[in-house]
Amino acid sequence: MPISPKELLESLNFRYATKVFDPTRKIEADTWAALEASLVLTPSSFGLQPWRFIVVKSSEIRDKLKASSWGQGQVTDASHLIVFTVRTDLSQQDIDAWIRRLSDVQDTPLENLAGYAGMISSFSANMSQSEKQAWNTRQVYIALGQLMTAAAVMKIDTCPLEGISPGDYNEILGLKDSGYTAVVACALGYRSSDDSHAKAKKARFTAETLIKHV
Amino acid sequence: MPISPKELLESLNFRYATKVFDPTRKIEADTWAALEASLVLTPSSFGLQPWRFIVVKSSEIRDKLKASSWGQGQVTDASHLIVFTVRTDLSQQDIDAWIRRLSDVQDTPLENLAGYAGMISSFSANMSQSEKQAWNTRQVYIALGQLMTAAAVMKIDTCPLEGISPGDYNEILGLKDSGYTAVVACALGYRSSDDSHAKAKKARFTAETLIKHV
Repeated sequence: MPISPKELLESLNFRYATKVFDPTRKIEADTWAALEASLVLTPSSFGLQPWRFIVVKSSEIRDKLKASSWGQGQVTDASHLIVFTVRTDLSQQDIDAWIRRLSDVQDTPLENLAGYAGMISSFSANMSQSEKQAWNTRQVYIALGQLMTAAAVMKIDTCPLEGISPGDYNEILGLKDSGYTAVVACALGYRSSDDSHAKAKKARFTAETLIKHV
Repeated sequence: MPISPKELLESLNFRYATKVFDPTRKIEADTWAALEASLVLTPSSFGLQPWRFIVVKSSEIRDKLKASSWGQGQVTDASHLIVFTVRTDLSQQDIDAWIRRLSDVQDTPLENLAGYAGMISSFSANMSQSEKQAWNTRQVYIALGQLMTAAAVMKIDTCPLEGISPGDYNEILGLKDSGYTAVVACALGYRSSDDSHAKAKKARFTAETLIKHV
């Protein structure tokens, strides 16, 4: 059963960047499993999935990350915290790994995927390492968008956290020399009744400003 | 009423990058209005909304865009086509415009927002113009993610289109010297019963590969 346009709008208006989470409320296991699935199922260019998601449960690690996130309380107080990381490169090995996986899952001979593999290779051949990293980084924002929307329709609160120090995060999470780098984080859980931001009127430019019809 | 984890999973599994749309089926007005609202309501860093969305109805323009999109049929055959564009800069004027809007909507005196405005200004002061554009570009992928997920829960099909020529798009859409540039597009509508991709098994790396718990 699809949800109605009205229900979608209610969910989108329910969502806001939660500043104060209720530290006593935890997301249920089946809901959390669906949110992890939303990360896994996020679409990406050519299907490459140039990312890894780190779910940080350790309160010790979350304390350290908070100190590298302008002290934002959401890092420690939300039910769950996800750090989004991306590949710093896109190598032939990365492409080969994806093509092998595709071949396995769809039970398709590798030969039949050679054209597709070649298209990805020739596309990426014109990019520098930093351009590849930037491309991967854009992709992971699709995952962030999908996650926040998926959470909203299940009435789970979120706060995207761009104000993090990726260098510190990489060190704390042991990502140095892993080929991945932290980009952005997202806290998930339930808003505290003390969060005055929940009552603030949602502010956007008008639809007439943002959307043009041609 | 929140949707259940099971319903979310069904929606996420329903979604795939639709290759062949049914050109005879159009998205209903109320559903389309909710999808446009999902664009307007997309969260962005500091709330800056560094974007404009172009809904292309003109079949003449869609024909031209198709020729600058590797001939992908989704550009012309889907019920709707959205082009995502971003500001090529982040000027003090942009920041001021946002702060004024925030002040209006939330009925807050500008003086009370001076600290927030200063924070955005000092954050952006350290970025080059191309870094600002790259930042804006990452943000618009949140909108793409939110849109595709919002569509999926309403059982609307989508296809993200990264294989477009932004330069050509800017020319066709009259964006030159507008301060905005095309980044990515998304076709929306209903899959054709002829689309063999709808039956392909969804291929992803395993959850164990993509998600690490610490």
